[in-house]
Amino acid sequence: MKKKFANLYLVLVEPKGPLNIGSIARLCANFDVNELRIVSPKCNIISLEAKKMALRGQRYLDKCLIFNSIEEAIFDCDLIIATCGRNEIGKDSNFESPEVISKWILNFDQVKSLAILFGREDQGLNNNELLLAHKVLNIPTSQKYSSLNISHAVAIILYELNKSFNENLEKEKEIFNLASPKEIKDSFLEIEEMLIKVGYLLEHTSIAKISKFKKYIFRASTTTHEMNTIRGIIHQIKWYLNNSRDN
Amino acid sequence: MKKKFANLYLVLVEPKGPLNIGSIARLCANFDVNELRIVSPKCNIISLEAKKMALRGQRYLDKCLIFNSIEEAIFDCDLIIATCGRNEIGKDSNFESPEVISKWILNFDQVKSLAILFGREDQGLNNNELLLAHKVLNIPTSQKYSSLNISHAVAIILYELNKSFNENLEKEKEIFNLASPKEIKDSFLEIEEMLIKVGYLLEHTSIAKISKFKKYIFRASTTTHEMNTIRGIIHQIKWYLNNSRDN
Repeated sequence: MKKKFANLYLVLVEPKGPLNIGSIARLCANFDVNELRIVSPKCNIISLEAKKMALRGQRYLDKCLIFNSIEEAIFDCDLIIATCGRNEIGKDSNFESPEVISKWILNFDQVKSLAILFGREDQGLNNNELLLAHKVLNIPTSQKYSSLNISHAVAIILYELNKSFNENLEKEKEIFNLASPKEIKDSFLEIEEMLIKVGYLLEHTSIAKISKFKKYIFRASTTTHEMNTIRGIIHQIKWYLNNSRDN
Repeated sequence: MKKKFANLYLVLVEPKGPLNIGSIARLCANFDVNELRIVSPKCNIISLEAKKMALRGQRYLDKCLIFNSIEEAIFDCDLIIATCGRNEIGKDSNFESPEVISKWILNFDQVKSLAILFGREDQGLNNNELLLAHKVLNIPTSQKYSSLNISHAVAIILYELNKSFNENLEKEKEIFNLASPKEIKDSFLEIEEMLIKVGYLLEHTSIAKISKFKKYIFRASTTTHEMNTIRGIIHQIKWYLNNSRDN
């Protein structure tokens, strides 16, 4: 995650699956999260199962901060987003999508610390807990089976945050290396000559067909290097044609 | 997932973690995937571990189709996207983000079946396997530790596809007319033969050069009609070569 925030914290509330916690630790490493915080864990967070899933994210388990209440875990944070898996999105619900929330966060210039709050695997966060957050985030899923594994919800949200942040930075420009129209035109003189020679094109109807080819070459964003490769092929075919005739 | 495609398939290549397979089955249910397909599984896909993670996605394990090769698993599909976790995104890489690929897919109106291909947990897909797909997808992650768990990659990609599809219900669509990987593969057998014959390629070094060509053809979003045109040219050159020799 680019340094949009001084700190990005994930806060898990009463997690009970060590596989999930380990998986989330790995995701913290995958997306440069600053800290993993856990409120009242219901399992051994440094068990073998957790470590097995964490792989190179294990430092997040080792350095994990444990709290007794959500308030303690988030009250040094500027901005708090809660997540909710329930599908009962009514008219007056204030649930928003990961993308909308990511873009909303980017409106602010000086967020020092962002906490994202994940509820219990089975019951999520209750209504009072949701009210501890500035916004509530909900990931759109199948109406038939909406319940995501918690680590998958974490993956999607970190991906979306990371994406929005990167988009928001000044984009790096591509190196300009497209074949010039002149290079393409010159190459096509040779291509046309060869195709007439082998009988693929007839001289009086070749213009239309060659135009289509040129459009294809432009559409493909063909580079100078690629155009030269095509030209090299044509040269070789011509050479072979001349050579085999002499034999 | 809205009914954008008649069918959306996930194809796992040689997976060896039953927890991962179970997790992915659950995600199939979360995002209304049509079918889970597995090429040469390296573990018991209906083990207790897999079922434990699948929960209400277990029907995807029960009905999972098993194949001996990637080709068999995808050749009834119109559009094939491969995923790649490697971070070596060089200058000439054609890896694209989930968002870019989702939007690209949505340009087409009549994709009957989309297959998304996921490689081995440890080694991913090799370069030849990547060339079986129209596009290669890469999820941007931390440069320090880019390797996502496979089920998290699945979650992110299904989320992004689902989101893009929902956003994009009213745009005008192009008709789906891309050349299939099989058409491209078959054409390249003929192209390679011709280029070896005229001395442009040497047999023992041709694979690398032909791979570059294939990437170019995929990048250009080559249609079936265009691929057939290229093939027609090759046929004509071959005919001429044979003919001029007889003289």
